[in-house]
Amino acid sequence: MYELNDNFFKFPGGYLFTMVRQKNERYQKEHPNADVISLGVGDVTRPLAPAVVEALEKAVREMGEEKTFRGYGATQGYEFLRRAVSQNDFQQYGAQIEEDEIFINDGAKSDVGNIIELFSLNNSLAICEPTYPAYVDTNVIAGRAGSYDVKTGQWSNIRYMACTEDNGFYPEIPKDTENPPALIYLCYPNNPTGAMITLPKLQEWVDYARKTGAVILYDAAYVGFIETPGAPHTIYECEGARECAIEMRSYSKTAGFTGMRLGYTVIPKELGNAQGNLHQMWQRRQGTKYNGAPYIIQRGAEAIYTGAGKEQTKAQIAYYKRNTQMILEELRKMGYTAYGGKDAPYVWMKTPVGMNSWEFFDLLLEREQLIGTPGSGFGPSGEGFFRLTGFGNYERTKEALERMKHL
Amino acid sequence: MYELNDNFFKFPGGYLFTMVRQKNERYQKEHPNADVISLGVGDVTRPLAPAVVEALEKAVREMGEEKTFRGYGATQGYEFLRRAVSQNDFQQYGAQIEEDEIFINDGAKSDVGNIIELFSLNNSLAICEPTYPAYVDTNVIAGRAGSYDVKTGQWSNIRYMACTEDNGFYPEIPKDTENPPALIYLCYPNNPTGAMITLPKLQEWVDYARKTGAVILYDAAYVGFIETPGAPHTIYECEGARECAIEMRSYSKTAGFTGMRLGYTVIPKELGNAQGNLHQMWQRRQGTKYNGAPYIIQRGAEAIYTGAGKEQTKAQIAYYKRNTQMILEELRKMGYTAYGGKDAPYVWMKTPVGMNSWEFFDLLLEREQLIGTPGSGFGPSGEGFFRLTGFGNYERTKEALERMKHL
Repeated sequence: MYELNDNFFKFPGGYLFTMVRQKNERYQKEHPNADVISLGVGDVTRPLAPAVVEALEKAVREMGEEKTFRGYGATQGYEFLRRAVSQNDFQQYGAQIEEDEIFINDGAKSDVGNIIELFSLNNSLAICEPTYPAYVDTNVIAGRAGSYDVKTGQWSNIRYMACTEDNGFYPEIPKDTENPPALIYLCYPNNPTGAMITLPKLQEWVDYARKTGAVILYDAAYVGFIETPGAPHTIYECEGARECAIEMRSYSKTAGFTGMRLGYTVIPKELGNAQGNLHQMWQRRQGTKYNGAPYIIQRGAEAIYTGAGKEQTKAQIAYYKRNTQMILEELRKMGYTAYGGKDAPYVWMKTPVGMNSWEFFDLLLEREQLIGTPGSGFGPSGEGFFRLTGFGNYERTKEALERMKHL
Repeated sequence: MYELNDNFFKFPGGYLFTMVRQKNERYQKEHPNADVISLGVGDVTRPLAPAVVEALEKAVREMGEEKTFRGYGATQGYEFLRRAVSQNDFQQYGAQIEEDEIFINDGAKSDVGNIIELFSLNNSLAICEPTYPAYVDTNVIAGRAGSYDVKTGQWSNIRYMACTEDNGFYPEIPKDTENPPALIYLCYPNNPTGAMITLPKLQEWVDYARKTGAVILYDAAYVGFIETPGAPHTIYECEGARECAIEMRSYSKTAGFTGMRLGYTVIPKELGNAQGNLHQMWQRRQGTKYNGAPYIIQRGAEAIYTGAGKEQTKAQIAYYKRNTQMILEELRKMGYTAYGGKDAPYVWMKTPVGMNSWEFFDLLLEREQLIGTPGSGFGPSGEGFFRLTGFGNYERTKEALERMKHL
């Protein structure tokens, strides 16, 4: 008789966004005429940029002609895209990342889970908290998280770095040098708090990782939303980051690609230790378990880096930022405390006194037909917070804020 | 200091198809004017069917308009595609597979590796040999394969089921009942031997799996090539398969989708044991580690199931089968022994006496500028064999066979 991976049975509940969706679906089934507005899951609403559409159309036509048809591409992605990435996303910021250090994938979420296959199960983890739940949940499935403590809502083998109002949502570098974490997850601009990190502070993390022999898994999915001058657009702006950091990117939020499924992972060639080289291991992993992203979609992404593409995707982001700005201002006018929203599409608001995150979720849904994401779903320190996104339609977002005034 | 997953360092060599590609690239670099013909990697060459192109174009236009734009879809795939799959690929053959038992993915290769995350590392494996190398290599990375024996070319924790000329390339059901395998990999139509299984023989495997409490991982990527009347088009034609089988499919070979990256996995709702339910575990896995396939590509696949789409993809397959038929006939005329090619796009030929698979590979490349795949790359029993595919252009395939006559 086969045995199952019993790590699956350690989860205390479902995956956060699945739970939010199910609550929404149940409500709408019971109230078929309800006009629900979602500022919950970070899904975009603007159509693809015209430059991207044009590139997709051309690629589709190519696939229909024998002479220009493309079968399997390189697992790592087409060179035309990797070249555009290295120039525009890295070298432009003074980060020396070459095109053969970029691995195109089907969205950051996949590689957030896949990347940990390169590491032994013995590695200790440090994860910011609140956090994008996939960092934790993928390690639970792999068997690296230990056991779950219902009282604290934490896993025994994870070192949680609380990001709270008190520390300005900025994780403190571990001070004990006895058992430093081997894998450190950082996400900037941050999901869910909307906080951004400065270059000197990020450099401190890089220095720490190099000193202790750790790898930083840097999630920069929201980099397109940065507006603070001098804020790091990649961890490779830090000195020595090539020796200790893997960066993960997504086109979902920077170019409205949530339905297109494309992103990439950067692994510098020298990254590794005496045991082996991570860049080569990843090549082996991808060659064995992945077959690349669709040609058509990669051509669409290439167009983001053209003059027209840059302008058009910048305009998309400006549209969402106007929403975020409005959410921040209106919430504050209503007397709520709210953070983030400047370098990120997320606003991190405090729930009303005496109400926890899920209670506030239920209240908003039932009384005002509004969907957000309960902060506690991102970890215990998220309790008492609620995440709203700027990814909605402007008029609908405005309407959502009007409804909140009636609470 | 972080520790690496040392299973990666157990591999005796690179991934088979990467090695073949590298040998080819090196040769072409040294001989820039060489006209190399590849009948090696199973990559298609016909352009996408017009019905597919039309559907893709429509979907691209939708993505460019606010009203029809689609962001995140369900991780499991769009209902329009899953419905077409359940009707056309299963219910048509009397197999009761419902649309919510189908999980759309980015190609069979990904899920071949992902699916084993559901199982404990203790499960014993039974794998046909020769075999598609990903079945073995993904288990090596996971740490389930044990140690590699250089002498036999085999891994200690894998039970190899030899498929040889003597047994008609058909694996024998294990006779010892002491320690039956928990996970059984079967692939029909078979890669690399091109063999097909009969419905009664497949039923024997299903009966065996039910009796011993095993799960069959059934790879049916080449199902579009079946022409033998009565041959099973899905394992779910067998009685009781819903209780013991997971089926994996790909559009790569049935509709020329190698550059499109789309496939699906079927996990019946009742599949599981006292420990847990595999269908639910897979939902959790996908919700945590995957975000679905591109909307555009799923619309392209939907078009395969229309009247025009069926006719056009059937014509593509007929084109490739004409190649395969020609390869078989010409090889036999040349005096080679060759198998397969009837229900599959692969011809499994014996290398000339006294020459092993890689020697024959080198000879063909260097003397005739031809690429095939060495049989030993699929496992020790593949030694002395060579795989040729019918996926090439007809004229080029003809030319390749002309060249072989000069050997």
